Amino acid sequence: MRIRGIVAAVSLVGLLGSAACADEGMWLLTSPPTEVLRSRYGFEPTEAWLERMQKSAVRFSTGGSGSIVSKRGLVMTNHHVASEMLSKMSTESRNLLRDGFSAAAEADEIPCPDLELNVLWEIQDVTDRVNAGTADMSPADANAARRKAMATIEQEASERSGLLCQVVTLYQGARYHLYSYKKFTDVRLVFAPEETIAFFGGDTDNFEYPRFNLDVTFFRVYENGKPLVPEHHLEWSESGAAENELAFVFGHPGTTRRLYTVDHLKFVRDVQLPTRLAQIWRREVQLKTFSNRNDENARVAREDYFGIQNARKALTGQLEGLLDPAMMSDKARAEANLRAWVLADADRTAMWGSAWDDLADAQRKHAAFFRDRAMDLSSSHLFQTALHLVRMADELPKPSGERLREYRDSGLESLRFQLYSPAPVHAALEVETLKSGLSYMAETLGGDHPVVQLALAGKGPGARAEELVAGTALADVESRKRVAAGGSEAIATSSDPLIRLAAALDPALRAYRSKYEDTVESVERIGYAKIAGAKFAFEGDSVYPDATFTLRMSFGPIKSYEEAGAHVPAFTRLGGVFDRAAARHGEEGFALPASWIQAKDRINKDVPFNFVMCADIIGGNSGSPVVNRAGEVVGLIFDGNIQSLSWAFAYDDKQGRAVSVDARGIVEALKSVYRADALVKELTGK
Amino acid sequence: MRIRGIVAAVSLVGLLGSAACADEGMWLLTSPPTEVLRSRYGFEPTEAWLERMQKSAVRFSTGGSGSIVSKRGLVMTNHHVASEMLSKMSTESRNLLRDGFSAAAEADEIPCPDLELNVLWEIQDVTDRVNAGTADMSPADANAARRKAMATIEQEASERSGLLCQVVTLYQGARYHLYSYKKFTDVRLVFAPEETIAFFGGDTDNFEYPRFNLDVTFFRVYENGKPLVPEHHLEWSESGAAENELAFVFGHPGTTRRLYTVDHLKFVRDVQLPTRLAQIWRREVQLKTFSNRNDENARVAREDYFGIQNARKALTGQLEGLLDPAMMSDKARAEANLRAWVLADADRTAMWGSAWDDLADAQRKHAAFFRDRAMDLSSSHLFQTALHLVRMADELPKPSGERLREYRDSGLESLRFQLYSPAPVHAALEVETLKSGLSYMAETLGGDHPVVQLALAGKGPGARAEELVAGTALADVESRKRVAAGGSEAIATSSDPLIRLAAALDPALRAYRSKYEDTVESVERIGYAKIAGAKFAFEGDSVYPDATFTLRMSFGPIKSYEEAGAHVPAFTRLGGVFDRAAARHGEEGFALPASWIQAKDRINKDVPFNFVMCADIIGGNSGSPVVNRAGEVVGLIFDGNIQSLSWAFAYDDKQGRAVSVDARGIVEALKSVYRADALVKELTGK
Repeated sequence: MRIRGIVAAVSLVGLLGSAACADEGMWLLTSPPTEVLRSRYGFEPTEAWLERMQKSAVRFSTGGSGSIVSKRGLVMTNHHVASEMLSKMSTESRNLLRDGFSAAAEADEIPCPDLELNVLWEIQDVTDRVNAGTADMSPADANAARRKAMATIEQEASERSGLLCQVVTLYQGARYHLYSYKKFTDVRLVFAPEETIAFFGGDTDNFEYPRFNLDVTFFRVYENGKPLVPEHHLEWSESGAAENELAFVFGHPGTTRRLYTVDHLKFVRDVQLPTRLAQIWRREVQLKTFSNRNDENARVAREDYFGIQNARKALTGQLEGLLDPAMMSDKARAEANLRAWVLADADRTAMWGSAWDDLADAQRKHAAFFRDRAMDLSSSHLFQTALHLVRMADELPKPSGERLREYRDSGLESLRFQLYSPAPVHAALEVETLKSGLSYMAETLGGDHPVVQLALAGKGPGARAEELVAGTALADVESRKRVAAGGSEAIATSSDPLIRLAAALDPALRAYRSKYEDTVESVERIGYAKIAGAKFAFEGDSVYPDATFTLRMSFGPIKSYEEAGAHVPAFTRLGGVFDRAAARHGEEGFALPASWIQAKDRINKDVPFNFVMCADIIGGNSGSPVVNRAGEVVGLIFDGNIQSLSWAFAYDDKQGRAVSVDARGIVEALKSVYRADALVKELTGK
Repeated sequence: MRIRGIVAAVSLVGLLGSAACADEGMWLLTSPPTEVLRSRYGFEPTEAWLERMQKSAVRFSTGGSGSIVSKRGLVMTNHHVASEMLSKMSTESRNLLRDGFSAAAEADEIPCPDLELNVLWEIQDVTDRVNAGTADMSPADANAARRKAMATIEQEASERSGLLCQVVTLYQGARYHLYSYKKFTDVRLVFAPEETIAFFGGDTDNFEYPRFNLDVTFFRVYENGKPLVPEHHLEWSESGAAENELAFVFGHPGTTRRLYTVDHLKFVRDVQLPTRLAQIWRREVQLKTFSNRNDENARVAREDYFGIQNARKALTGQLEGLLDPAMMSDKARAEANLRAWVLADADRTAMWGSAWDDLADAQRKHAAFFRDRAMDLSSSHLFQTALHLVRMADELPKPSGERLREYRDSGLESLRFQLYSPAPVHAALEVETLKSGLSYMAETLGGDHPVVQLALAGKGPGARAEELVAGTALADVESRKRVAAGGSEAIATSSDPLIRLAAALDPALRAYRSKYEDTVESVERIGYAKIAGAKFAFEGDSVYPDATFTLRMSFGPIKSYEEAGAHVPAFTRLGGVFDRAAARHGEEGFALPASWIQAKDRINKDVPFNFVMCADIIGGNSGSPVVNRAGEVVGLIFDGNIQSLSWAFAYDDKQGRAVSVDARGIVEALKSVYRADALVKELTGK
C-alpha cells in the first residue's frame, strides 16, 4: 500500500473529516487528538515525545514511509517501498529484488541511484500570507495568485534555512502550512529479504489477513560519506505489543476523500475509478504477457507489474465501497443535514450555500474531458524525461512563482536528482510501454483524433514505439544534461525523436492541464474551503484534514475481528508461514525462499510475525513505524485488509484493520534465517 | 482460434470480398474457385470430390470445425475446440481437460453432455423468396418481413426433410441460401491429450510460429446407440504433405469484415474493439485472481480463462491491424475508386450511391448507444438460462416467424438441448461472473442508471450476486423444465430471484436489441447489399462472401516465410518440443506432460509436428481438416500466426499463415506416447 504513480495520479485533493468514529483520524502533529487520547486511553503525549516521533519519521520519494531506528542512521521501511530501488539496483546477473541482500559490513552497503529521504523539521502556518489579496478574484486568478505566493514563501524559507520547503494545502484551502524538510540523498542498502518472503502470498494474499510477510528493508543514511548521526531515532521495544494494547502510527498517508460531496463521490464511482481500473486491467495483462516472453522481461517489468496489481486490488476495493448503497446513503444523509443547517440561516447560506452546486458543476465539466488524460505518455520513463526537458526549457527562464508547480525553485534540486539518475533504462520495456500508451491514446480518443495522428506520425503504435526508442539518446544521462544545459535553443534544434514528440504534444498536454486547473481544481479549492468552514461551524474544530502525503499520527488498539462468522486473531506466528506454504503447495506467490526452508528448524515458530490494529491508515503509510506509549518500535505497517480499502471514503473499524510486521518477528528472522547479528545488535543493542 | 462467445458476439455481419490476392478466399462449395485452381495449380475438383469433402466436414456447436475420419463415425477436431466439453465432463477428481483421456475400447468412450454436431447435407438458393414483397418497405419493415419469410422457409424445409434447416444471409443480403444439416447429439469422447501438450506454450506461443502443439481430440458420433456408419468420410494420407504442395481446408470460418466501408472499420477501430478489449482485459485479470484463490477455482474457470486470453490476443492483433495506416489507406483507396465509378453514372448513383453515407450514419448511431450492451448479464450461465426461460414464455405462443430469431421452430430443438444440459453449474464461478457483470454495468452506465438500480436492487454487486446464486433453483435441470412447462404463468408467479431479475431486465434488453436491429442492422443489410451490387458490376462476380460460420473451402501451398530477417521454416518436428521446453525451463505453459517425458526416447523426433500454409482462414476454422488433392487428411488447422490476425479485414500472404498439426505427428504421438494402437488402426488402416 505504498503510493505508486498510478494511484497517486488520482488527484491529491485534501479534505477534512470529522472524528466521529472510534479511533478514526490521521492527525496533524501540530494538532494531536489530545482529548481523545487522554479520555479513552489515559495517555498524554508530551512535546518532547511528539518531536522525537516527528524527527524520527521519514518520507520516501518513491511513495512510502519509514523511520530512523538507530544512532547510525539506519532507516527501516517495507520491502515493497524499497522495491523500486531494489529493481533499479539489479542487473541481469544480480537480482536484488528477487534474491535479497545482506551487507556483511558498512563498507558493503550499496548506494541507491536516486532515492531521496525527507525528515520533517519545521512546521509553520502561512494561511494568511497565501490567501492575501485573493478575496475578490475569479477562481482561476485566485488559484494563480496563491500559487505565486506559495512559491515566494517556499523560496524565502529555503534560502533562510537551507531546508527543502513546501507549502502544503490542508483542509483543501482552509489552512496552508509551510513544511521544511531535511533532505538526504546518499542512501545505501543494508538489508532486504527475498521477495517471496517479503511478499509471501503475492497478489492472492495482498490486502488479506491473516498474513505471513517479512515486508521489511533497511537502508542507511549517509552524510558527507559517513553514516548519519541523527538527532532523534526510535528505540526498539524489547517485549513487543500485546493484544488490546494502544499503539501509534507515524507516517505519510497519501490520499483520502473522506469529505467529498456525494456528487463528487459519484464522479469518482462512475468516471474516475472505472477509467483508472480499465487502464489498470489493460496494463496488468500487457505486463504479464510481456513478462512471460522471457526471464529478462520478467525481471525488468517485475516492479511495474507488482505496482499495477497492487493498484488494481486497492481500487477494486474502493469501487466496491462506492457501489455499496449503505455507504453512499450514509454520506447523503450527513450531507443533507449539513446543507439543511446552512440553508436554515441567511448568513450561512450567503457564506457557504453555493458550494455543493458549484462542486457538482465542476465534476460535470471534469467528466466531459476526463478521457483526454489519455494524451499523456508519461508512463514511459523516456517520454517523461523528454517532457521534463522540453518544459524546463520553457519554464526555467520564468520567475519561480509563475512556473508550472513542479519547476518551482523549491523542488528543482529533487527533480534534477531524479532526472539525472544513473538507474538503467530498459529498452524493451520502454518500447512496450510506449506502444501501450500510443495505442491507449488511439483506443480512447479515436484513431483520427489530431493528437493521436501527431503522436503516431503515420505509423502503427508498435512501429512508432520502436522508432522512438531506437532513435533517442535520452537513455544516456550525459545526453539529458546536454539538452538541459542548451535550454530552448537545444530543444528547438534537437532531432531526438522523443524530444520532438514531447515538444509536439506539450501544447495539448498543457491545454488539458489548464482546463483542469481553471475549471475544476480552482472551483474545488473554493467550494471545499466553504464546506470546511460550514463543518467547523456545525461540528466544532476537532477535525483532521484529509491525507496529503504529509506526516500524520494515527492510533488504536491491536485488535482481532470477526469475518464470515469466524474469529480472525490479531497475531500470526512465524510457524504459520510454513503451514500456509504447504497448504498452497508452492503455487504462484506461495513458494518459500531456500533460506527459510533451510532455517525451518532453527526458527522459533511461536514468535509473532504479523498483527492487525485499528489505526487509521491508507496508501502511503507503508513503512510507517508502529510504536508503543514509550515511543519504542513494536511493528511496521505494511498493508491494510480488504475491509480497510473503503477507508479512502469513510473509516470503519468493524472489520477494517491496519496490518503490520511484528518487531519481534523481524528480529527473529534476522537472527535465525539471515544470521544478521550485527544488524540485530544495532537495532536492539543485543 | 475457435469462435468463442465473447468473440462471436462481435456481430456476425457477412460481406463480400474480392479475390485480388494470391490464394485468398473462403469459397462457397456451390461456387468453388475453379478457374484459379485450374490455371494456377492444374487442379479440377470434381462434383464427387466436393460432395465427399462437404459431407465429411463437421460443424461443432461449441464454435469450431471438424471432420469425419473413419467409417465408424470417428470425428477429429482440435483439443481447444473440445475443451469446453472436456471441462464440462470433468469433476474435482477427474480432470479430463488437464489430464487427457484415451478410451481403451468403444464401451469406455464418455458421452458428452450437450455437444451437437452438424453436417451440411443440402444447399438451396432462396434469395427471391426471402426478398419477395420487400422492395417498397422501410428498412425495419423489410427486415421483419425477411425474418418471417426465412422462418417459414426453414419450417417447411424441416418438415419435409427432417433435417436442421437454416437460411444463411450471404453477401450481406445479396444472396440467401437454405442450408440443411444432419444433426448429431450422441457424441462421445474417444481421445484427448493432456492440455499442456495440446496447448504447449500457452498464451505466450498462442498465435505464434514455430509451434509444437498436439492440438487434437477425437470424438465418435453414435446413432441409435451405435457408432455412426457415415455415407462419407476422409481417408488418412500415408505420406503427408510436402513443402510447396497445394492443400485444401474445409471448415467453418466465423466472421470476417473484409469489405466493411472505411467508416465502418473506423467504428470497429474506435468503438467496438476498444470496448471489447477493455472488457476482455478486465475479465482476464478477474478470472486469473479467481483462479489463484484455490485449485478448484482454477479448474472450473480454466476454460473461460483460456477463452478470454485467446480472444484478447486475437482482438489485439485485429486492433493493431486497424491502427496500421497502411491497411487503412489501402481500404480508403479501393473505396474511393468504387465510389467514383458509381458516381460517374446517374443510374449507378441512383441504385447504389447512397450506401456509404447511409452506413456511416448507422455507425454513428450505433456508437451512441454501444455502451448499453453492458446491460446484458449473459456471461453468467444461470442468468442466460433465466433469460431464455423468460423469453420462451413470451415468444413460443407467437407464430414462429414473429419470434426473436433464436426461438424460431427450426432452432428450438438445439436450444432445448443446451438449456436442459446436465453439465454442472459451478456456484463460485457463477457468483464471480454475476458480480463482475453487475459491476461492469455500473462502471459503464453509472451507479444511478435506472437499469443498474434495477439489477442491483439496493445491494452492492458482490452481495447481490451471492443472493442471486444462493436463491435460484435453476442450477437444477428439472427446475428449468418445470418453469418452461409452466409458460408465462410460471414466470409471472416465480419467486426465483434470477427469473425475477431476467424478467425485470428483459424490457431494457429487448429495447436495446430493437434499436440495434431497426437503426443499424437493417440499414447495414440494405447498404451492403447495394455495395455488393456495385462491386459485382465493377469487378465481375468471381467473389466470395465474408465468413458466416458456414462451410467454406480455402486453399494454398504449404509455405515458409521471412520474419525480422530470419527464415521461418514451414515444418516443425516432434523433437523440437523437447528443445523448447528445455529453453523455457518449465515456465507457465511450457511444462511437458509426464507421458511425453517418459516417451522421449521412443518418439521419432524427425516426424513433422506442425506446419504452416497460405490458406485463407479465421476463427471458427479451428479443427478443419487439411487435405491433399486426393482428399486425404494431411493436417489439422489449429491456429493462424500473429500476422494472420488482420485477415479479419484483409488477406495478405506475405507473412500471414494458417497453422496446422501434421497428420504424421498425430499418428506418431498416438503410437509412441499414448500407445493408442486401435485408434491408429482405425485412422490409417494399420
